[in-house]
Amino acid sequence: MTLNKADKKLGKQTLVFSNKPIIASGGSVVGVKEGQGPLGNWFDMILEEDTFGEKTWEKSESKMLKEAINMAMTRGGKKQSDIDAILTGDLLNQLMSSAFMARDMQIPFIGLYGACSTMAESLLMGSVLIDGGYGSNIITGASSHYCTAERQFRMPLEHGNQRPPSAQWTATAAGAILLESNKNQFFEDEKPLIVDNSKNGPVTEKKVVITHGTLGKIIDTGLKDVNQMGAAMAPAFVDTVLNHLEDTGRKISDYDMVLSGDLGHIGKQIAIDLLADAGIPIKDLINCYDDCGAMIYEKEQDTHAGGSGCGCSASVFTGYIYKRMKKGELHRVLLISTGALLSTISPGQGESIPGIAHAVCIETC
Amino acid sequence: MTLNKADKKLGKQTLVFSNKPIIASGGSVVGVKEGQGPLGNWFDMILEEDTFGEKTWEKSESKMLKEAINMAMTRGGKKQSDIDAILTGDLLNQLMSSAFMARDMQIPFIGLYGACSTMAESLLMGSVLIDGGYGSNIITGASSHYCTAERQFRMPLEHGNQRPPSAQWTATAAGAILLESNKNQFFEDEKPLIVDNSKNGPVTEKKVVITHGTLGKIIDTGLKDVNQMGAAMAPAFVDTVLNHLEDTGRKISDYDMVLSGDLGHIGKQIAIDLLADAGIPIKDLINCYDDCGAMIYEKEQDTHAGGSGCGCSASVFTGYIYKRMKKGELHRVLLISTGALLSTISPGQGESIPGIAHAVCIETC
Repeated sequence: MTLNKADKKLGKQTLVFSNKPIIASGGSVVGVKEGQGPLGNWFDMILEEDTFGEKTWEKSESKMLKEAINMAMTRGGKKQSDIDAILTGDLLNQLMSSAFMARDMQIPFIGLYGACSTMAESLLMGSVLIDGGYGSNIITGASSHYCTAERQFRMPLEHGNQRPPSAQWTATAAGAILLESNKNQFFEDEKPLIVDNSKNGPVTEKKVVITHGTLGKIIDTGLKDVNQMGAAMAPAFVDTVLNHLEDTGRKISDYDMVLSGDLGHIGKQIAIDLLADAGIPIKDLINCYDDCGAMIYEKEQDTHAGGSGCGCSASVFTGYIYKRMKKGELHRVLLISTGALLSTISPGQGESIPGIAHAVCIETC
Repeated sequence: MTLNKADKKLGKQTLVFSNKPIIASGGSVVGVKEGQGPLGNWFDMILEEDTFGEKTWEKSESKMLKEAINMAMTRGGKKQSDIDAILTGDLLNQLMSSAFMARDMQIPFIGLYGACSTMAESLLMGSVLIDGGYGSNIITGASSHYCTAERQFRMPLEHGNQRPPSAQWTATAAGAILLESNKNQFFEDEKPLIVDNSKNGPVTEKKVVITHGTLGKIIDTGLKDVNQMGAAMAPAFVDTVLNHLEDTGRKISDYDMVLSGDLGHIGKQIAIDLLADAGIPIKDLINCYDDCGAMIYEKEQDTHAGGSGCGCSASVFTGYIYKRMKKGELHRVLLISTGALLSTISPGQGESIPGIAHAVCIETC
């Protein structure tokens, strides 16, 4: 016996999902501003106004998450009683959006907190449950809302404070993914499925699966400016990328897309600089790397350093990237959601900002 | 092919850990008041004062959790680089205690939020990682602190407000467990290990393993009184107990101990009434059921309805129950940590209190 080694672990931080959990379906709901952004046409639902008919912003965010989950379940042909567990999180104290969403669902619930890294964290832990045989259908997801986040982390909107140019804009957005066991499906072979009859005849869709997850560790470079979240999280993103590449023995050019979420414009540039310093060829980086926070708004939308919030990478991945993968436009994507694990009171106690980034490798087959 | 069914799932909500993750070691750290309680002699470390030498209560709580984790690692003969992941949570906004603990650890970190259900949630998800082969050594744990919780959820201590008789006292406590893969160890058979030389000669210790986990769903009976947490969580506890028994086909008398954490005195009585109504024999209940919140303080300690907080079931299980299991005094325990998933602002928005309870079945062998 040689053991003392996990069967499904590669290198230091990477888990291998050999049963390849399937991304069976997704749902994305975004606010007005996000709907007006460059990805507006890709999202499944754009709110007419950001209250979503609710009396409070928090109830609106919770309803957005529930809507995204219901969308994913319906599209995946599943009902509540088919789902083994929901794994979600959000930015609100005590995971308010997720808890009140799950209250109405009557499905076992695991609350996760990873700040803006939550979408990848939930996909990763959901994949563990599916791949390990602990469930056949798992819902993962995350949400955020500009108005709830401003009230909680910064200033009430009524205060009308000015935002510094380095500040990011918390996306009003929710995304949910239904993960399904490969064993649920009876593929005769690995050919694409014919799933829809559009005007142009049958459309083939690729099967999208999760093959690896890389757990992030906390990186804190001592930065204390709470309006520099991208800079605070970029080193954690770089750490996870480098660990993922080392663990898997891959190069960055092995990916069609490496997607951080959400470093914004400033953090994205820092990440490029740090990755280049670490020896990643700039040409390859420019070919494949982008950031959800840099993608979700136009520069003209006055969000300063770009988007952020758990819902940003959740909606960009679910609404845009996943759909491009299904269409066969992208074949191997590394989604790395990044979180700043400061608290509302830790800066006042002199603490710097801990960053974290979890990765999932998603492929078509 | 008949699949569409998870391999390691039993009934609706229960996961089966057939590789039986081992509880290799534990560490518990409690505050002054908890050290003066009936379990004082069992805890591994009792603080001389609740600041633990730190300038803020939050830093004290984070240090307690780190201390408990370091204790578990040292006792388990492991160093930081041996640990595959840390899964912890606490009551503080943005998981402040866990995030700052993990910053110093340089170990992959998964943040969990389940309010006072976090200890069972972390043991359950940690067991999934070990049992599924995704890691060989996983740290699980949780913490809480009376002074951080009062400031965040109720009134600053300086306010000196009176607590109603139904209020519970957030335990100043942290507990951590090192879970280890069975494959790490080379038992020739299942005989107890001889592990220590005390004054009375060699002491044999039982091996303690986790065999099942039951994921809880949210139960909300509409209760809105934030000083009645035990009453708000008791129905979720009962739901998880009944689902666990149904899924496993067991009776409550199959357990030496069923332990809720933390319903307190009022919630415990409600749980007994509800379980009796559901047909569980009262005699069996009285034989095996207790509550961490009812156990951690003497009635004379003026905590009113008993203890609560993530650290309560974490420290009572780690410091007391786990040690009794190792000594062979208890053989099969069902630990069901209970959480109230309200937020600091949800009651002000007219919401009732969602309860949740996750269970892990722990056995000696």
